[in-house]
Amino acid sequence: MKKYLDESLSARERAKALVNEMTIEECASRLRYDSPSVERLRLDAYNWWNEGLHGLARAGTATMFSQCIALAAMFDSELVERVGEVIAQEARAKYNAAKSFGDFDIYKGLTLWNPNVNIFRDPRWGRGQETYGEDPFLTAENGKAMVRGLQGDGEVLKAAACVKHFAVHSGPENLRHEFDAKVSAKDLEETYLYAFEEVVKAGAEGVMGAYNRVNGEAACASEFLQKKLTEWGFDGYFVSDCWAVRDLHEHHGLTSNSVESAALALKNGCDINCGCSYVNLLAALEQGLVSEDDIRKACVNAMTTLVKLGILDEETPYDNIPYSVVCSDEHKALALECAEKSMVLLENNGILPLDESRLKTIAVVGPNADSRTALEGNYCGRADRYVTFLEGIEDRFSGRVLYSEGCHLYKDRMSALAMVGDRLSEAYAAAKSSDVVILCVGLDSTIEGEEGDTGNEFSSGDKESLRLPESQRKLIETVKKAGKPVIVVCASGSSINIESDCDALIQAWYSGESGGRALAEILFGDISPSGKLPVTFYKSADKLPDFTDYSMKNRTYRYTRENILYPFGYGLTYSKAQCRELEFSDGEASVKVCNVGSFDTDEVVQIYLKSHDKNAPPYPTLCGFKRVSLKAGEEKEIKIDIPKKAFTTVDESGRREIFSEKFTLYASTQQPFEEFGDGFLKMTITM
Amino acid sequence: MKKYLDESLSARERAKALVNEMTIEECASRLRYDSPSVERLRLDAYNWWNEGLHGLARAGTATMFSQCIALAAMFDSELVERVGEVIAQEARAKYNAAKSFGDFDIYKGLTLWNPNVNIFRDPRWGRGQETYGEDPFLTAENGKAMVRGLQGDGEVLKAAACVKHFAVHSGPENLRHEFDAKVSAKDLEETYLYAFEEVVKAGAEGVMGAYNRVNGEAACASEFLQKKLTEWGFDGYFVSDCWAVRDLHEHHGLTSNSVESAALALKNGCDINCGCSYVNLLAALEQGLVSEDDIRKACVNAMTTLVKLGILDEETPYDNIPYSVVCSDEHKALALECAEKSMVLLENNGILPLDESRLKTIAVVGPNADSRTALEGNYCGRADRYVTFLEGIEDRFSGRVLYSEGCHLYKDRMSALAMVGDRLSEAYAAAKSSDVVILCVGLDSTIEGEEGDTGNEFSSGDKESLRLPESQRKLIETVKKAGKPVIVVCASGSSINIESDCDALIQAWYSGESGGRALAEILFGDISPSGKLPVTFYKSADKLPDFTDYSMKNRTYRYTRENILYPFGYGLTYSKAQCRELEFSDGEASVKVCNVGSFDTDEVVQIYLKSHDKNAPPYPTLCGFKRVSLKAGEEKEIKIDIPKKAFTTVDESGRREIFSEKFTLYASTQQPFEEFGDGFLKMTITM
Repeated sequence: MKKYLDESLSARERAKALVNEMTIEECASRLRYDSPSVERLRLDAYNWWNEGLHGLARAGTATMFSQCIALAAMFDSELVERVGEVIAQEARAKYNAAKSFGDFDIYKGLTLWNPNVNIFRDPRWGRGQETYGEDPFLTAENGKAMVRGLQGDGEVLKAAACVKHFAVHSGPENLRHEFDAKVSAKDLEETYLYAFEEVVKAGAEGVMGAYNRVNGEAACASEFLQKKLTEWGFDGYFVSDCWAVRDLHEHHGLTSNSVESAALALKNGCDINCGCSYVNLLAALEQGLVSEDDIRKACVNAMTTLVKLGILDEETPYDNIPYSVVCSDEHKALALECAEKSMVLLENNGILPLDESRLKTIAVVGPNADSRTALEGNYCGRADRYVTFLEGIEDRFSGRVLYSEGCHLYKDRMSALAMVGDRLSEAYAAAKSSDVVILCVGLDSTIEGEEGDTGNEFSSGDKESLRLPESQRKLIETVKKAGKPVIVVCASGSSINIESDCDALIQAWYSGESGGRALAEILFGDISPSGKLPVTFYKSADKLPDFTDYSMKNRTYRYTRENILYPFGYGLTYSKAQCRELEFSDGEASVKVCNVGSFDTDEVVQIYLKSHDKNAPPYPTLCGFKRVSLKAGEEKEIKIDIPKKAFTTVDESGRREIFSEKFTLYASTQQPFEEFGDGFLKMTITM
Repeated sequence: MKKYLDESLSARERAKALVNEMTIEECASRLRYDSPSVERLRLDAYNWWNEGLHGLARAGTATMFSQCIALAAMFDSELVERVGEVIAQEARAKYNAAKSFGDFDIYKGLTLWNPNVNIFRDPRWGRGQETYGEDPFLTAENGKAMVRGLQGDGEVLKAAACVKHFAVHSGPENLRHEFDAKVSAKDLEETYLYAFEEVVKAGAEGVMGAYNRVNGEAACASEFLQKKLTEWGFDGYFVSDCWAVRDLHEHHGLTSNSVESAALALKNGCDINCGCSYVNLLAALEQGLVSEDDIRKACVNAMTTLVKLGILDEETPYDNIPYSVVCSDEHKALALECAEKSMVLLENNGILPLDESRLKTIAVVGPNADSRTALEGNYCGRADRYVTFLEGIEDRFSGRVLYSEGCHLYKDRMSALAMVGDRLSEAYAAAKSSDVVILCVGLDSTIEGEEGDTGNEFSSGDKESLRLPESQRKLIETVKKAGKPVIVVCASGSSINIESDCDALIQAWYSGESGGRALAEILFGDISPSGKLPVTFYKSADKLPDFTDYSMKNRTYRYTRENILYPFGYGLTYSKAQCRELEFSDGEASVKVCNVGSFDTDEVVQIYLKSHDKNAPPYPTLCGFKRVSLKAGEEKEIKIDIPKKAFTTVDESGRREIFSEKFTLYASTQQPFEEFGDGFLKMTITM
């Protein structure tokens, strides 16, 4: 038996043995994301590029979960882990099906390029929706959960996760190929690298380099960043973002041609090239820019991952996962559960939950009311059933529903030959003829997302402001003139200020295949809303630091309380919870939380810590959270481990230590922020 | 009181009085489709352009019925009349709402630019879907029914119908602005003008001129065609197709500039100009190309229509139609009924209806499976609920449904970076994992439709052949390899040859908002299919006459039996009907029809007539039809009036007369065509 087929050896030993059998040309070819087969060694072609950010993506039919920013709003990393399990399960089922068909194309493999653990430092970033929000701890907890779910705990990886985009990456999209993010040592350690370190140490199999430079070095060819990975014991494969290596000469000016770019990346630890630069690796070898050892080393890294996935094995425990698991009832139920738990109730004057007995007619209005795109978010799969907001309400409500699209998502009219605002009279009529209006506004992935995907007249994927498009602002004002109660539902991947009073406001995010059903359940009080904001909602973009400024100063809840519309951690329910008896011992916080209202609900107990050290961020920082279900009147005692790292702070040199003995610990169902909510518990801890 | 407000006067008298009060400039301005207000006379702005081909269209939310070709497949003009009533009802409701909002924009008025009674003479024509098929009689019956429904029978027109495109118009789309259709006198009288004459005589309020020329004259400025309208007693308004008057100088070479084009059109009876040519009417007046009288005469025609619509009245019987009638339950039920009655079962080896008790898993595959666009057809409104084929099956079937898009509608791959056929492995896996496959193929309005709307890499709106796009042909072959029974569902507005054996084949057309529900009801045997083809399905386009050849020779069932895949009038049910005892007296045919099968079904009794005159078309011609519901075992006697005109034939000079005394009368539930079906009754009549 060939040594590389010997399943008793370690993955790396087998990979080394395999690479030993390969010619240097074969090795180089296997560092392309679209690796050709090596028939001599019975090595099938393999395409490293697959996506599974919130459900298996771009690969046809798959369960489509709420976008990641919404998953973060659940404040429930156990649920995120289950999402990861489903993604891996469906990836295996589709891999099995594709393989038996002889299909080794893009989006068919087992190397999924998620999670995205970049910090959503600026609300304008179009790809912020892919992240778990603005907080390093929340991001890391969810990132680890996703990796656990994707990779499983078997001897063979179920799927290989890949954390991205290493590192610091967070817009602007239209500059990303040339941008040099200048980041302080403190911000790097405290904010930008935190989740990467946590997730890599938790065993993420892959790391993807970012497009941008970080303090001068290209992220895909960075000595500094590679050193970090080594420190963290990273043992997997490193892949460039797609066509990012080409940027080294085309946009970053770090090299002068493709051959040099390939060499610079390979020399600095980029094993797999998404793009076409590594077709030049043999030229780089000829020119002496890389050695055969460089190529073989990268190839060993890559082959190790494939071995861990069982791709070289006769059989794996996953070969019998049938195609029918894709979009199974169980998977779809989980997608619904995520949508239910991620929507955030931001305003409610008491109109919600709706009293169905007093409603004959509901108007459902707005460009996102019957939009499948508004459920999807970017990097999505194709659901086998979409339930739009309109459809969810139609299915749930026994009375009459009047629908009007109201306006285009961002254009000033629906018909080219018409006058501006050509659906406003319809929207007004629908509102006027109804007892209450559900007004579905926001963005979708055609205008909020990634450069290239979303380049249109409206934007480059990033938002220019936190306002709704003008067409929608006019729609809101028109509908309000009808004089009926208005419940605004905002689908977006980021902070929006709707700039208008309304009777209730629900931040629905991009809520996945069953978003409309979850919304209807919430509107009619079948369940209580329970999501919490994983990002700060600001009043205005005008008061934010410049988008290109990567300093954390005045950014996120840890560093600012100015310009706040709704704070990080905020979210109402249909009930009322109170915390009492906060205690702390042996690294564990305990607190009792009671549902003192009359509605069964989930709540999220949030623990924040403020070090009294001068290096600490100015405001208390999330260090623990737990989602808990509470019947009306029910009280539960919650215990939450506080990681030791929560007590560290980071000085200007980037050194992380416990610099202080004194801390204040906070517990509440939201961020401890006096101007919002009903107060919080706090206690002083001395270590 | 101003005379034009005197409701005791005739509409034309009031219009004349109004026009007498208008300056010549005001008159000219009111001949533009987007007429400005005349505040001095309290005349609101009015936009003549509104659409309602198969539901109020382009005006936001409205009940969306099956496309017209499908409505024709019902062979049920009473139902078409009810569709017209709903369209008018919704038009009034939306007109009332828009008017009270001060909105007099495009697609908000009461002049609906339908029905389209052009003859679908060539299956390649993209706009053939808008028509009632290839038969003049069937077209006329449905056209009259639509007009009755739209206009109502009150003193005030509920809405104003407009028959189009006068005349002969039927492709090619990409030549329409310059094309001169050469038509014989016989074909004009026998085929192309037949339905126009019938519908105009039945009281259609408007006529729209076509883009093309007819034997040298532009249809929008044709002395010949105007003379026909006069002969028929036409008393309404004539409107140009949109920007067709501009074509007179830009493409037809009939005039040398805009002013001359406006003059030529006005002089030849074109009252209203859709487009911008009539801004030149005053210049034409100055240049002596038209007279004040010409302008005032056209304006009287136009104002007469507005008076008939009650637009100048203090109140009308329709002012209280509330907005809530739009998409009412009753209207939606009618849309479903049309979808149920229009789908045509073309093949069935016994697999249909599906035996649910023996099915655990169904694969629903194909680019049209979950496509809302595939329900719409062109000139459509926005439904408040779409039920796609996939959704209909998911809702109806209690077992598992596996969905795969399978391929792009016409592109060779779904993802730009992927290899050709990148969803085939998924489609195969879904099929392989199922007990039966519902394979949803066909076209949609992005590739079948009107020049301008559908200009893309695939087509100009017309079909190049009768084949499915290559991507779909590959999909069918791939899915069949899975070895499971395959039921093909084809959504298209015209004849398609799927070129593949399958267990069953349903022609679903563009089936409107509830198409998926209707399909599921048929698949699972809740109802029997009962639609009949209103067009011949040909085997191949290669054997058709040239697309630009307007001779009827070798076109449609009346003139050819070559190259026939499925004949006009064809369509299976889940039962079996037999006709007996055909009789004829006093212009009435009577026949007994019995459901000799074991399934309740609708059937369509079809009466054809063959004159023994040498001028008669070579094959029997439809002269009567009646849809009838039959329980299993039930027999009904059907009486059908045969119009006297059915006994006429048309000689080469275009003279229509009863040239023969001898006729053969046929009765069956399909066209009398030996190679298809179970036979027919016939009898000889001597007049």
